[in-house]
Parts: sequence; structure tokens; C-alpha cells
Amino acid sequence: MTYQEPAALQRDSGFLRIRLDLGYDGGPFSGWAIQPGRTTVQGALEEALALLLRRPIRVTVAGRTDAGVHARGQVVHLDLTTAEWSGLRRGADVEPNVALLRRLRGALNRVLGDLGGAVEVHNAVVAPPGFDARFSALWRRYSYRIADGTLQWDPLLRTTTLWHKAPLDLERMNAAAQPLLGLQDFLAFCKPREGATTVRELQRFEFNRGTDGILLATVQADAFCHNMVRSLVGAALLVGEGREGTSWLQERLHARIRDARSKLAPAHPLVLEEVRYPSDEALHQRAHQTRALRC
Amino acid sequence: MTYQEPAALQRDSGFLRIRLDLGYDGGPFSGWAIQPGRTTVQGALEEALALLLRRPIRVTVAGRTDAGVHARGQVVHLDLTTAEWSGLRRGADVEPNVALLRRLRGALNRVLGDLGGAVEVHNAVVAPPGFDARFSALWRRYSYRIADGTLQWDPLLRTTTLWHKAPLDLERMNAAAQPLLGLQDFLAFCKPREGATTVRELQRFEFNRGTDGILLATVQADAFCHNMVRSLVGAALLVGEGREGTSWLQERLHARIRDARSKLAPAHPLVLEEVRYPSDEALHQRAHQTRALRC
Repeated sequence: MTYQEPAALQRDSGFLRIRLDLGYDGGPFSGWAIQPGRTTVQGALEEALALLLRRPIRVTVAGRTDAGVHARGQVVHLDLTTAEWSGLRRGADVEPNVALLRRLRGALNRVLGDLGGAVEVHNAVVAPPGFDARFSALWRRYSYRIADGTLQWDPLLRTTTLWHKAPLDLERMNAAAQPLLGLQDFLAFCKPREGATTVRELQRFEFNRGTDGILLATVQADAFCHNMVRSLVGAALLVGEGREGTSWLQERLHARIRDARSKLAPAHPLVLEEVRYPSDEALHQRAHQTRALRC
Repeated sequence: MTYQEPAALQRDSGFLRIRLDLGYDGGPFSGWAIQPGRTTVQGALEEALALLLRRPIRVTVAGRTDAGVHARGQVVHLDLTTAEWSGLRRGADVEPNVALLRRLRGALNRVLGDLGGAVEVHNAVVAPPGFDARFSALWRRYSYRIADGTLQWDPLLRTTTLWHKAPLDLERMNAAAQPLLGLQDFLAFCKPREGATTVRELQRFEFNRGTDGILLATVQADAFCHNMVRSLVGAALLVGEGREGTSWLQERLHARIRDARSKLAPAHPLVLEEVRYPSDEALHQRAHQTRALRC
């Protein structure tokens, strides 16, 4: 087999961008982002990478998750020099890139294995040209699990599911959620950052009851501002309990102020399920567009 | 509503037997049974009961579980004096027993709530005459969950599911399990206690793959000796991997010695799902029968 440089490497000058897909149990971590003196997912991943590559390395993430929040479909990218990429090869062997990537993934998982299966790299690929884990994403989808009053509480669910003892009215929650869809200013449901917009496109916000009786919220948007999913779910819970009317969420959206009655839903039932990217051709263009919009 | 003494209380002299059904996440506990200086499920439950009844109290359990093993359908009984039973009433109110039992359950769960949802009392009832949580049981059913090589590992399963990276052959495992059914001496799969029999009736021992791809073992017997489920599953794993033949379990059973090749499957994927009791009429008789057999 003759060795072929990956396309990205040929076009770029000296760097190769790698995309990693991963999942984690957020329970033992103080969230995604590195914080001094705390165990974070980013910290664990970057330490594992530094061990393999023998230099400090930074990754760029699709969705920063708060303390306790889980992920099944998190995406990051990182850049390797051509020398580092070649260095992953064993001796003088000519190895196809796919074998190298499988080895990178395996090596990462062996190092991360010290965390007892809490973090798992599902896949490692050479990113298509123009790929940026954060800025190329078309949308992020989160799930939120709730066992409400109609169910017998199963203690085995306690790390992934909210136990809400009062029964919840699904129809009321969906009626309240529906008017929030579309391109709107979510200031009322965000912890805003100085100078950053709180306008987002909410694409899905719905509640369904599974065959196991558990209520599953699906929340999808082009991007989320800080605390947005937990704020939306927390508000919908008040409607589901009958403590607020079905128009309350829409009223709050229009008022554009954070309401003292609302509280964040707990973090542990929240899971980043999927991040979707455009086709390879459309990627390069989109990275430039969203960077201009949100920076 | 006129107050009616429960039947058990009328027949017995001065004691009322209560049956509690409960579930727990075994993760934070050093198993069921009380041990000095350790957090155990029995310890937590008896402390909560002592707090409510203002005296030390002992419960009798259907299935002692090891450290890390969970339960969805654990059963215990405890005996209250008629004075304690009446003392649960609020002041001079005449309350039906069902309300009292609901209050007992609620009070227990409030005290146990300090454990973050790790233990939950599902139900409290007055036990039928002759009921004994341990000796009246007809059978115990356990489940054991395994995600094997064909699946992408989901870190959110890590507290309830074994991650077995090699793919497992379900048909081989079922072929090996089937000959063990029936009344047999399970010495080869038990950690025996001095003077106690290791003869048990294995009623179900089967592996099925769910729609989610996860392999679920179901193991049911009249009763289990110590380590029996984890020993059976551990042996079946070696057959599923192809490291032992499908007749190996049966050979071990007949050899009646513990084999060095076998190892216990880990505790965290094991759940006590259900304990089944006979009808109320048959109860009294059965309690005497099994006590004679196993003591």
C-alpha cells in the first residue's frame, strides 16, 4: 500500500486537523472547561493527548458542558504538526492513515481508562478542510430525562434522570415550548456574556414520554448561550406542574429579563446528544460565516 | 371510618409484621449487610427506622446483596409492637391502616432522602400471616447487563453495565447455561458456608440481546448461595468469548470444585430484580418448610 498524505495536510501548511468524537459521564467532572485544581473533561483529554504527543496541546470543543452535564456526541478538534503525525507511525512502517487514527483513538482510551470508563473517544478522523468543531456546527441537540409522579422511583436512574415527584402535564409543556421556536432573543433564558448576542435559532423544544414512562425533553438550536437548556427546561417544569400558564415562557421571552420565579433545572439529567456539521464542501464557507456572527 | 386491627395483629400476640419493598443503587454502599464503620443499605434502613420508632430495630432481608450490587425489588420484614403501631398515629385520630403505612413509607423516604435518591422504599404493607421475607420466598430473580464488542461504549452506562470489549456469542452462552437448570449442587459456583447446603434449584439462566444491543442475563433460583450469580455469569463470559467450550459449565458443575480459571463477574451490573412469594394461604406452611431445609 502506498502512503497517501491526507487531503487536509496537502492543502494546509504544516498542520493536520483531527476531529475526535467522544462521550462522557459528567458526574465526576467539574464541567468541560479547564479550571485550576479541578478535574474537568477538557483537562483529562488534554492531559492524555499531551502524554501521547509529548507537548502541551489545546482542543476546541463543540459544546462546553457545565459541571455534571453528560455527553454522548461531543466533538472536538486539535491540530497536529506533520512531524507529530508522522511520529505516530511505528518506526519506518508505511501505515495507512486509518490505522494511525485507530491507534491514536486506542492510545487515548487506554490513558483515559484510568477514569473508570467515564470518558470514551468513539472516533478519530482527519477533519475535512475548513472544519472547526465549534464554528462549523449547524446545530447541537441535548436531551433531558425526567421521571415524574406517575412512576415508581428507580434509584439506578439517579445519575441521569431528574426525579420530579409531582406529575407533569406533557401537553401543557409542549404548548408552552412551541412558541419559542425560531430565531429569537433568548436573553430571558441565558446568563449573558458581555458584548455577546443572545439571539439563537431554537429548532426543537419538545417533551415526549417513552414506553418506560420517562419524560424526555429534546432541545436543539444552532447554538446555545450559557445555561439556556437548563433554564428552558426549568421554566417548562413550572408549566407542567400547573404553577404557571402555558403562555408564560413566551411572555418571559418577550420581556427579555431573567425572572426570579424561574430556576435552572438540575445538571445531571442533561446530555449533549449530537452535534451536526454540514457536508465537507459547505464546511469551509460556514466556518467563516459563524465566526463573523458570534465573535 | 371505624378502626380495624390488621388480621396479622389479631392473630399474633402483640407484634405486627410489616413488609417493605425497596430499590437501591448499590454504588455508594458496602453491600447490604451491616458492617462496623461501613455504609451499608441495611445500616441506612435500620438507622432510618430507629429514628422513626425511637429504638434499635432489625430487619430480615430476602436477598443479601454484595458491595456494589443494586436492587429494584428487594424485600424486607420487620416487627412492630402494637404500641409502636398505634404510636405512628397522629394524636387521637382514627386513621385507617393504609394511611398509616403510606405515612411510614413517606417518613422513611424523607430520612433516606439524605442519600440523594440512592435508596427508595416503594411500598409498605402489613404482611400476611406467616410471611417471612427470607424464608417464604419462592424465588429470586437477578439481571446482569453487558455491553460487548459490537457496541459503542456509552459512559453513562458505567455504573450499571459491564463493558466487555470482546464480542460475545449469545448462542454459545445459552447452550452452556441451559444444562445447569434444575435442582443441582452448585458447589462449583458458590463460596460455601460451613455446614450449609449448596443445592439450589436454578429456574432460569439465559442471555438475551435487547433492541439497544445490550446483552441481558436473567438468573432465577429458589435461592442463591454466596457469589453464585456472579460466578455463573463470569463462567458464561469465558464461553461467550470462545475461551471455553459450551460444555464447560456443566463439567464444572459435575466436578463440584471451584476452578482457578473462573472469576467472578464484576458486581456493578448485577441487579436483584424481583422476589416472588406464594399466595397468602400457602405462606405459613412454606416458612416452616424452607427454614427446616436451609438452617
